[in-house]
Amino acid sequence: MLVRNGRIEAMGADVSTAAPGEPVEDLGHAAILPGLVNAHSHLDYTIFRGRLDNEPFFPWIRSLTELGARLQYDDFLASARLGALQMIRSGVTAVGDSSFSGAAARAAAEAGLRGIVYQETFGPDPSEDYREQIEALSERIEELQAEAGERISVGVSPHSVYTSSERLLRLVADLAADYGLPVAMHVAETQEEAEFVEKGAGQIAEFYSRFGFDFDPKGKSPVAYLHDIGLLGEKTTAAHCVYVTEDDLDILAEEHVTVAHCPKSNAKLAVGTAPLDRIVTRGILTGIGTDSAVSDNAMDMFEEMRFSVLMQRAAWRDAGALDAQRALELATLGGASALGFESEIGSIEPGKRADLIAVDLSSSSVFPTSDPYSALVYSCTSADVILSLIDGEPVYRRGEFLRTDADGIRQQAALLAARL
Amino acid sequence: MLVRNGRIEAMGADVSTAAPGEPVEDLGHAAILPGLVNAHSHLDYTIFRGRLDNEPFFPWIRSLTELGARLQYDDFLASARLGALQMIRSGVTAVGDSSFSGAAARAAAEAGLRGIVYQETFGPDPSEDYREQIEALSERIEELQAEAGERISVGVSPHSVYTSSERLLRLVADLAADYGLPVAMHVAETQEEAEFVEKGAGQIAEFYSRFGFDFDPKGKSPVAYLHDIGLLGEKTTAAHCVYVTEDDLDILAEEHVTVAHCPKSNAKLAVGTAPLDRIVTRGILTGIGTDSAVSDNAMDMFEEMRFSVLMQRAAWRDAGALDAQRALELATLGGASALGFESEIGSIEPGKRADLIAVDLSSSSVFPTSDPYSALVYSCTSADVILSLIDGEPVYRRGEFLRTDADGIRQQAALLAARL
Repeated sequence: MLVRNGRIEAMGADVSTAAPGEPVEDLGHAAILPGLVNAHSHLDYTIFRGRLDNEPFFPWIRSLTELGARLQYDDFLASARLGALQMIRSGVTAVGDSSFSGAAARAAAEAGLRGIVYQETFGPDPSEDYREQIEALSERIEELQAEAGERISVGVSPHSVYTSSERLLRLVADLAADYGLPVAMHVAETQEEAEFVEKGAGQIAEFYSRFGFDFDPKGKSPVAYLHDIGLLGEKTTAAHCVYVTEDDLDILAEEHVTVAHCPKSNAKLAVGTAPLDRIVTRGILTGIGTDSAVSDNAMDMFEEMRFSVLMQRAAWRDAGALDAQRALELATLGGASALGFESEIGSIEPGKRADLIAVDLSSSSVFPTSDPYSALVYSCTSADVILSLIDGEPVYRRGEFLRTDADGIRQQAALLAARL
Repeated sequence: MLVRNGRIEAMGADVSTAAPGEPVEDLGHAAILPGLVNAHSHLDYTIFRGRLDNEPFFPWIRSLTELGARLQYDDFLASARLGALQMIRSGVTAVGDSSFSGAAARAAAEAGLRGIVYQETFGPDPSEDYREQIEALSERIEELQAEAGERISVGVSPHSVYTSSERLLRLVADLAADYGLPVAMHVAETQEEAEFVEKGAGQIAEFYSRFGFDFDPKGKSPVAYLHDIGLLGEKTTAAHCVYVTEDDLDILAEEHVTVAHCPKSNAKLAVGTAPLDRIVTRGILTGIGTDSAVSDNAMDMFEEMRFSVLMQRAAWRDAGALDAQRALELATLGGASALGFESEIGSIEPGKRADLIAVDLSSSSVFPTSDPYSALVYSCTSADVILSLIDGEPVYRRGEFLRTDADGIRQQAALLAARL
């Protein structure tokens, strides 16, 4: 593999001898891959890892909101830096991250990650005007764009249909259109969300009435509702999509919406299994995401690939549902496509950016597998990543973080964790 | 933790200062656990890792049989040694292993592992007499007992109800009773197995008729059928139990049969999700198994714990289905109980054997989790194991295999893999 000026120049038999003075690195028995793309994360919440392991979705999200309310911007920054450190350690070179504090943009940029950080917003109260909130939001997005640097784009994320009123969603849709912003949303994550939007009933409706909020049942699915509002397009990534009908998949496919599949989060929160196989078969561009450390804990994209295959096979009892090669594609080119970066990253092609990782294939859980897809998807973990480059710049090599002050980040995080 | 004469003497505040000359080891920020118990494995097949990743159960098992037919005893030994190496690397100190070649007994003994190796047998043809086979089997078991050493017990395993005729099963039940042998079987692993036993129909019946074998439908479930034959008792471990009815669970509970749950194998082979939560709730002693590298690939018991929780939560959409502490219990004391070793291993108690592992809790996928159960079950992998003792003897420490010739085993395995 020949990397020059931050880009892939040639590989395999096309690689000529290095020019005098050019560094050469022998990676041993390793696979060189496109850097993994984490299509849906919340680096802000890394500090809460292990705090909410046993709650089902709605109690969990309320507890998470309460935990989050204890943090200031600097705390979220310490937390997001810890998350970015784990991304680098685990072979992730690009993220699609939703952040309420906005700290993830700075943390990701400092770590050298590529990606989109979506400024989150929410507001369920239909009696609110929201114009001031939207004004503040657009200012905040401009600030983030200035501080995030060139590898991080800024997008916008109304959290979900059940935490954002129709008026807020429409205003965000206008804002996104005006600024040409990418959009991320949690979509059809739970059956309760679908029930609430369609019928105005269930657990979420009870919660609304407790707070005195109104909600008109929409008589349609969350996907159809968002479609009417104008939030679904090729710059929109829908995270989760666990409860989607065939009609919903038609809409997602026709509008070129991309999907971020988060199998471990959906499992741990007892939400269910997303129909990944059906989504992918429709030709919907799909990436894989870890979600946050509060639901995923490890945030290991290798394990997410493994779960993606195994949970589809278990749920639909179909060994043809997904294979290792497809899972690796989802975690690389799929994620890159979901974020709109497919022309620059996501595969190993001359001319693409050198966002590359090397994964050692000699561990005792891999040996003697000769099929690299099998090894990477069914056996490897973050611990097997030995080198990570972004734009050709080494950011991690065999235990050493080359760009970030890992010890300092851990010390700050330890201080924060001790206060919580 | 104070270990003397191969046993746990004291821990925590009860540990006095070491006597002069006694070695003292500071393990840093680590958890000390009972060694993990792999309640169902096939070390013999490790060499086939990554060879059969995309076949559903029945084509898969036929392909595996064909692959196995290419190996001689020495090949199986090389393969089982590779598997035992991964067991040691991943914090497993005891196994319940089913082996047709018998090589696993020698490989496990050499590695210093504790456990039971079950000599496998099969024979579906109801016209066979099987008395000679049983005689050879009992001789083989005596040989294995002689060569396996004191930490490995020998048991017997008629592979399954669909690969063993009723006559063979009855003769094995008699043999097991005569010798007081532990028994392991694959039980109710697939829906096809249940359909075949009850109705004599489906995929397996077609396979039987192709070979000219008869099979009388039993009009009952595999569990009920095995119960009638007399193969179910407290010395029997039933692997898988994916398709079990409430009546089956009654039988398993009443007969004190133990269960080996293999979630990743069941998922990868598209078999389904075993009702682990219901099994455990019935008070049935249950361990967790990796099954072989041909279905599980990595054979990492940490990931099996993780899958055990997450697949139950996803399948039954119940966040209370299983938690991290329970998963760790299944992988330690549960497995020890399934194998009948619970008085000697499986928990950290003064007087128990010092089969102990230390797991580093400082990796970036764990930090800053303060709950050790959460860290071990939701974040750790085999790569975090830093020390492993069996009977107080260190067998692995920070990358070094202290008892086995890891390089030699890998070289032999590489030669074998290249031939296949």
